[in-house]
Amino acid sequence: MVRTAQFLSDNAASVHPAVWDAMRAADEAQPPYDGDALSKELDARFSDLFGREAHALWVASGTAANCLALATMCPPHGGVVCHREAHIEMDEGGAPGFFLHGAKLLLADGEGARLTPDAVRAVVDPIRPDVHWVQPHALSVTQASEYGRAYRPGELAALGELAKARGLGFHVDGARFANAAAFLGCSAAEAAGPCDALSFGFIKNGGMGAEAIVFFDGEAAALARWRRKRAGHLQSKGRYLAAQILAMLDGDLWLANARAANAAAAEIAGACADRLLHPVEANEVFVRVSAAEREALRRQGYAFYDWGSDAARFVAAWNSRAEDASALARAIAAL
Amino acid sequence: MVRTAQFLSDNAASVHPAVWDAMRAADEAQPPYDGDALSKELDARFSDLFGREAHALWVASGTAANCLALATMCPPHGGVVCHREAHIEMDEGGAPGFFLHGAKLLLADGEGARLTPDAVRAVVDPIRPDVHWVQPHALSVTQASEYGRAYRPGELAALGELAKARGLGFHVDGARFANAAAFLGCSAAEAAGPCDALSFGFIKNGGMGAEAIVFFDGEAAALARWRRKRAGHLQSKGRYLAAQILAMLDGDLWLANARAANAAAAEIAGACADRLLHPVEANEVFVRVSAAEREALRRQGYAFYDWGSDAARFVAAWNSRAEDASALARAIAAL
Amino acid sequence: MVRTAQFLSDNAASVHPAVWDAMRAADEAQPPYDGDALSKELDARFSDLFGREAHALWVASGTAANCLALATMCPPHGGVVCHREAHIEMDEGGAPGFFLHGAKLLLADGEGARLTPDAVRAVVDPIRPDVHWVQPHALSVTQASEYGRAYRPGELAALGELAKARGLGFHVDGARFANAAAFLGCSAAEAAGPCDALSFGFIKNGGMGAEAIVFFDGEAAALARWRRKRAGHLQSKGRYLAAQILAMLDGDLWLANARAANAAAAEIAGACADRLLHPVEANEVFVRVSAAEREALRRQGYAFYDWGSDAARFVAAWNSRAEDASALARAIAAL
Amino acid sequence: MVRTAQFLSDNAASVHPAVWDAMRAADEAQPPYDGDALSKELDARFSDLFGREAHALWVASGTAANCLALATMCPPHGGVVCHREAHIEMDEGGAPGFFLHGAKLLLADGEGARLTPDAVRAVVDPIRPDVHWVQPHALSVTQASEYGRAYRPGELAALGELAKARGLGFHVDGARFANAAAFLGCSAAEAAGPCDALSFGFIKNGGMGAEAIVFFDGEAAALARWRRKRAGHLQSKGRYLAAQILAMLDGDLWLANARAANAAAAEIAGACADRLLHPVEANEVFVRVSAAEREALRRQGYAFYDWGSDAARFVAAWNSRAEDASALARAIAAL
Repeated sequence: MVRTAQFLSDNAASVHPAVWDAMRAADEAQPPYDGDALSKELDARFSDLFGREAHALWVASGTAANCLALATMCPPHGGVVCHREAHIEMDEGGAPGFFLHGAKLLLADGEGARLTPDAVRAVVDPIRPDVHWVQPHALSVTQASEYGRAYRPGELAALGELAKARGLGFHVDGARFANAAAFLGCSAAEAAGPCDALSFGFIKNGGMGAEAIVFFDGEAAALARWRRKRAGHLQSKGRYLAAQILAMLDGDLWLANARAANAAAAEIAGACADRLLHPVEANEVFVRVSAAEREALRRQGYAFYDWGSDAARFVAAWNSRAEDASALARAIAAL
Repeated sequence: MVRTAQFLSDNAASVHPAVWDAMRAADEAQPPYDGDALSKELDARFSDLFGREAHALWVASGTAANCLALATMCPPHGGVVCHREAHIEMDEGGAPGFFLHGAKLLLADGEGARLTPDAVRAVVDPIRPDVHWVQPHALSVTQASEYGRAYRPGELAALGELAKARGLGFHVDGARFANAAAFLGCSAAEAAGPCDALSFGFIKNGGMGAEAIVFFDGEAAALARWRRKRAGHLQSKGRYLAAQILAMLDGDLWLANARAANAAAAEIAGACADRLLHPVEANEVFVRVSAAEREALRRQGYAFYDWGSDAARFVAAWNSRAEDASALARAIAAL
Repeated sequence: MVRTAQFLSDNAASVHPAVWDAMRAADEAQPPYDGDALSKELDARFSDLFGREAHALWVASGTAANCLALATMCPPHGGVVCHREAHIEMDEGGAPGFFLHGAKLLLADGEGARLTPDAVRAVVDPIRPDVHWVQPHALSVTQASEYGRAYRPGELAALGELAKARGLGFHVDGARFANAAAFLGCSAAEAAGPCDALSFGFIKNGGMGAEAIVFFDGEAAALARWRRKRAGHLQSKGRYLAAQILAMLDGDLWLANARAANAAAAEIAGACADRLLHPVEANEVFVRVSAAEREALRRQGYAFYDWGSDAARFVAAWNSRAEDASALARAIAAL
Repeated sequence: MVRTAQFLSDNAASVHPAVWDAMRAADEAQPPYDGDALSKELDARFSDLFGREAHALWVASGTAANCLALATMCPPHGGVVCHREAHIEMDEGGAPGFFLHGAKLLLADGEGARLTPDAVRAVVDPIRPDVHWVQPHALSVTQASEYGRAYRPGELAALGELAKARGLGFHVDGARFANAAAFLGCSAAEAAGPCDALSFGFIKNGGMGAEAIVFFDGEAAALARWRRKRAGHLQSKGRYLAAQILAMLDGDLWLANARAANAAAAEIAGACADRLLHPVEANEVFVRVSAAEREALRRQGYAFYDWGSDAARFVAAWNSRAEDASALARAIAAL
């Protein structure tokens, strides 16, 4: 039972003990919403982590984080450039259309669900500044991407430069930001690049129900505070969300957890290098396996999502056990 | 410090131990979102509680609960009748305008922030069926009201009858539904009346971050599921929200907690019957106290909100201690 | 038949011959949308008229003019202060909620459906800068008001000063701006006050289907151009709308038409000074008449709207004939 | 000057004399909005034309017509299947996102900007009924398509059958419906197919500023009436719009005008069959011409839009003169 869920998705994994402890420690009543001492600590903590002035808001989901961030960058009549397979385009039930009041996603292509400056230009450049055409106002990339690919710091810098040159806000969807940073072995600042806002994910990485929207622009953060309340995302007992985030930052637990998940994914990938659809640069492994092979694996107790008709996606979590990963690796190798 | 927060608001109180236990017990990974066993249990549990077919969705805030419920009843071009001092009108940062895509709140008057059929008619009847005028599509009442007043079952029945006659959806904002039910001493079904949807609050009553939207109409619930995701309120580890709600339902903990809060409020009220702005029928006490008197109370360590220039609001929580309530009662009596 | 419609509303009157001529003169094909020579002339013409830099967009209705103007001033999470009986609140089918993406109208009181600085302060001042409360971002007044009352230049200056001090955009709904200006006998600039945008109405004053939104801020006008297209209000044969507006400006036809309508209204009012609900300062006359009296007037062939149970509204148009107004005046006097 | 505009776009052509006459004939005051006798005639006239019960609303633009129609079929959280190059996707400044409150366009491919059942299935079938995915609620096709291609009655029937089977509303964008019907030589009903709503264009075909939304479902029409007002598209002097439409229907002027435009396009096409990008089935001619060739044509006084780097688009209007079309044909042939 445990085993099955472990490779299905990191988004259902258990909560890390340190996160539990931090929440319990926050149990005493404090001023509601984000008036508590823990919530007030976030700005400083993220400023430290990123080495530049940061303003952080907690929310309960990555969807809310992404959409509230983008709503500070793009007006209702504007557009957001993103990858054709980005989470905001594919998997958020139309949330960007809701939070951005009908703004449009402008879809770009790119290998591994990653964008390049050329791919962005291919979308942006043909758009004449004409009222009949939706104009780009923001660029959103996913770190790590939907296929578990990490942007290198130089790649993000180039995208950020382009965004700036074109007057686009720059957003990073970091639902698995920790996994990317752990893989890259660089600083948080380098892994986030010169973005204006980062959806910093904790839920897939050992948290319970708290993500951080990290703004590097005070006005955007202030705007997002109005919008967060208006979206029903200003929880009254916000201290429990802040506690989760702070626990993850303490002693770089976020990195330790991500490293563990990445290691498990690497273990699996090592057993099937020739079957990989994408290089493994985070905690997701996309493997070419036939329907019969998937059936065989499921009979052995493994759970995972089918990925089209010829492949499967295995996701390791912070608490994936080494022995389970090894066993799965052997099972794939034995197919 | 503890004392101060206790009468400021119930929305920042600690989480009940049974709720903590239930969350911990749900820690093992399960299918994400609302695919877990606990979330799947909600419909049956609320159906039992209300004695009619119910469909329940968890969300992280009362604002989200109210707005998602109303969005199933009122189209973007419609209106929702509510009290002029209703939470959805006064305190939700424009969330109804967001979730309902610009629908309008049609404001009615009524003593104690409660509506009567006459008050609703006074708003609805003059509205001609003319495209220049926003038409009413739903009625929303608050149980208990913003002033801690409870609707009697017969009053809700009359409102429900009117709503039905006029083709209005009927919504109950039950952020403090438990307190009303505890005060009334009636069944949950009677305390909710013949509504189409109830925002059943748990956060103010010992929960952490989970409210239930209870629909008595399967189609509306199905619609709300799409809208919940789109609003970023479909949390991936939804089992922790379901666990909170189930813990509150187990052994009627929701009623026990509410009774405790109500009792503390009654203790306070008993000491200042001549100063009460409103009869105390839940866990809120509105007291006429001058600025100097408020200052005196604050010097003694009590925290509360000013209510205009001549009054204060004291709110008791599930864990308000009897001795604190008594001490506050004495302090007020001694003013 | 003709007679009946004349006092029902100015919004259905015939089109002035000069407007017809101007449209016919524009019949030759030109670049579509607002790329034609006539549309391009508007900015200069309104800049001349108002003596300050103006940017003007045509649209087909006052509702669109008001809402597109306000959408440049107020974000989706904000509020617009207006009179409780303003057209945008009462008669536009919820259009502000649509164009402003759920922003809220914040209602103020005032005699004759007119606002004063005190009335605005009474709404704005209690609003704490708190995310739970919708914040005011704009102020909208109607010149002439819903009851045909004109703001004096000094009154508009005071409102504009207050708006500026509070950081509110200042909008004037001028569906009957011409009637107000004609009554005041002042310049267009004085009649519009220090507003940021004016909905300058022509349709009720001899036009067919063209109003102008006059912006005194280039950035707001640029924003409105995106929003106009997005709202389906960028007509492809825009030259016919521009032609209407230019015809109305030529030789101050707008003032001549308004003076004629005002004169007819004054004629009516003179016959029933003791029955007037409001001083007559434009082309609307609100008269206290019983149901039986209204019936008597209707039997004589007059058409008008009932105004509640005890009154009637008579509206004169640019082409109301002096003899019809006199006859109606006599008929009322004879009641 | 005249010549240049004629092939640039039909959307800027002159108004047909019969339309002018009808507007002038409607000049006498009548009840405002759509309360006049002409507006009331529309339902019957379109019912006659299509041979089934129809409900018709006038609006001032094709964008408004398309979006108001689609808003009756697709909720804010839903999606509309359309061609990747459809006008609603490419050229309406994000209007569908506005009118549909953030609903999504789901893009399908197809030769000549036309959809086939297979192309629709390729979009619709992979969409699981899962809240993370935007669900299709409507299908929109363009008759004639963006490339001037006409759907045959059988093709529309097949698409309509698929739409019905999948529970999708079926909308036809008929900005150039007349040109398609004239080309097909079939009845209006056959040219519209089994759609639920048709945007019936008149502006490109000799009208001034009136399109009809023809609903074949009374409830949808009723809904659209609320939405039309809310979008500022309920003009007060609606009789002038109704008059335009009725004039176009009288004696099948809409077909005569479209035939004239189609004939001019055919004349041009005949001169350059080997250069055509698309078969000419309406009034648009897409011609492969180099930059130098385009320059040569422009020097001769012809105006047209570039279509990418290697082609040009010529559009004939109802009043394109035979001699101009012939001259252009000769000029192209001589390149």
